Amino acid sequence: MAYYVDPDIAATGRVFPMQGRAAYRRFDMNENPSGLPEAFVSKVLKEITPEFLATYPEPDRFLNAYAAFLGVPRECVTACNGSDMAIRYVFETFGEHGKDVVTVSPTFEMYWVECCILGLNHVPVPYDNDLTISVEKILSAITKDTRIVVLTNPNNPVGNVYEEADVRRIIEKADSVNAVVMIDEAYHYFYERSLIDTALSYDNVLVLRTFSKLFSLAALRLGTVIGDPKLIHFVNNGKLTFDVNSVALLFAERVIEEPGLLEALIESEKEGKRYFVETLRTSGYEVSESSANFVFVRTKGDALTVARRLQEEEKILVHPYQNPLLRPFIRVSTGSKADMAAFLDAFFKIERSEEA
Amino acid sequence: MAYYVDPDIAATGRVFPMQGRAAYRRFDMNENPSGLPEAFVSKVLKEITPEFLATYPEPDRFLNAYAAFLGVPRECVTACNGSDMAIRYVFETFGEHGKDVVTVSPTFEMYWVECCILGLNHVPVPYDNDLTISVEKILSAITKDTRIVVLTNPNNPVGNVYEEADVRRIIEKADSVNAVVMIDEAYHYFYERSLIDTALSYDNVLVLRTFSKLFSLAALRLGTVIGDPKLIHFVNNGKLTFDVNSVALLFAERVIEEPGLLEALIESEKEGKRYFVETLRTSGYEVSESSANFVFVRTKGDALTVARRLQEEEKILVHPYQNPLLRPFIRVSTGSKADMAAFLDAFFKIERSEEA
Repeated sequence: MAYYVDPDIAATGRVFPMQGRAAYRRFDMNENPSGLPEAFVSKVLKEITPEFLATYPEPDRFLNAYAAFLGVPRECVTACNGSDMAIRYVFETFGEHGKDVVTVSPTFEMYWVECCILGLNHVPVPYDNDLTISVEKILSAITKDTRIVVLTNPNNPVGNVYEEADVRRIIEKADSVNAVVMIDEAYHYFYERSLIDTALSYDNVLVLRTFSKLFSLAALRLGTVIGDPKLIHFVNNGKLTFDVNSVALLFAERVIEEPGLLEALIESEKEGKRYFVETLRTSGYEVSESSANFVFVRTKGDALTVARRLQEEEKILVHPYQNPLLRPFIRVSTGSKADMAAFLDAFFKIERSEEA
Repeated sequence: MAYYVDPDIAATGRVFPMQGRAAYRRFDMNENPSGLPEAFVSKVLKEITPEFLATYPEPDRFLNAYAAFLGVPRECVTACNGSDMAIRYVFETFGEHGKDVVTVSPTFEMYWVECCILGLNHVPVPYDNDLTISVEKILSAITKDTRIVVLTNPNNPVGNVYEEADVRRIIEKADSVNAVVMIDEAYHYFYERSLIDTALSYDNVLVLRTFSKLFSLAALRLGTVIGDPKLIHFVNNGKLTFDVNSVALLFAERVIEEPGLLEALIESEKEGKRYFVETLRTSGYEVSESSANFVFVRTKGDALTVARRLQEEEKILVHPYQNPLLRPFIRVSTGSKADMAAFLDAFFKIERSEEA
């Protein structure tokens, strides 16, 4: 073409998610398969008026409530159009063209895609064959060329968590080379320990949270970034004027203030996961239980085939992998006991038919 | 600080809009002051369920409907988290660090802010003192260093429109230096002529549309980009995975398919603007009627004082200007006749008290 195109963007290959997922039961993207209580959703929707929809969004009321909810100062928090956007902002702000972003591998693939888009050099630190990750290897990957280190805690897809002492070593190594550490806590609440307090004791650490997972609002797009006020100032400097939409801000504010809702969501998923894992183990399955809302199941039939047949015959979506380490498994998102029972009915049916 | 920060983002100064605008009647940001019909909004909200909210957004159903609505091929359209994000994507994709983005001045200020954030060189082409803009000056500003030319049609805040022949000259000059032209039609429908067909006859022209203005959905964040499939491919290459939220996509789809809604929205604003302008002129006011949903009114009292008193005493927001060309005026967004009558009551009260 006869016009300039950013060479990094031009060279990036993209695969966007499948469409029409509403026609399936969804256990593939770590959403809550059923979502929030119906009565709560109806109540919040009543607040949405024509004037509400016609008015540009304002994040401050939510952010004040959210900072109090987390117990952190207001200037330590900002809100973004999903963690997707939060990752983009952090990489744009603290990344340097041609310099390194260190992540483990495998992990959430958008870190790598954003590196491609922005021309950052992705340095993946591989898991060992037993699906454990060596902190020493992460430390060795952090060099004077590192600008950002990403830790996903718990990690996705592997589901491991990091010890606080190890995270501190990583933060201090990053600090010694003037790099920022981004800790993605997308799966917080499924895993109860948070590193926000640890993060706020340093000036180079950001924590990401999302309302797409436990809070069951993936449709609305709301992610938050928590960190030292100066880091948050720089993130805000590069932000859109109107980023998070008003419906996301409204639902998020109501979710965090609704008495008992958080606890009920946590308990429902824990009960569902417990039931799911126990039923599978009783049936002789090897199950790798994560600290997040997903479980790896080693299928008896071929994993890719089982996943395909679940989709085609049972209208159920799960996540299979081409990655050799994960190839024998399907990843199944966990929800309520009723959700998991419905899944298991279909799963056992396909597995029996594959064995036959 | 002891970490790398992108120097352009670090150097950008930001002012975010005031919060708490719901407590005011809003005539300051060219929203529809009252919004969509209540019955329509209630009907669409009924489609939002807990499962809907828990599921990641999917743009394709809306994009198929929208392409048909515009009468353009599907691959010529993409959707973004507001025009705010569309501008960001276009500048990231077709802008080059240190090279030029040409706009008129004054215009929508986010073009300039995005240039700051992304390290692009903003080349403003000033209006003449009679608030007309010289196409020759725009053409002269386009040089071999130009990567993007922005035309806002009608322009905001001035409200002028561009003749198609002039736009073609600008496109062809841009093409001769391998630059892309971005035509922002945020105010389309208030101004009925569109340059989409013109744009699609070139391979270097993008048109931006928004659902925030006539379609009265500013809260939800939905902007679209229309252009040659190759341009749209590059924009998609640099996009987030999940960009526009599901509620925006749902409302937008319902708005464009609702019989008579578009026409009713256009007619309501036209009636309101006509009434507003005639009433002011009858009262001896100098009024500059734009081709968009706003009007410049030369106040009898000092414009900044009138704007401040409208806000403090009447809970009404309008847009005053520090820019010397626009300093004698307030910009008033136009809505229904009822909205404008409410505005005029308060406005005449303040003006009389300033004259006294």
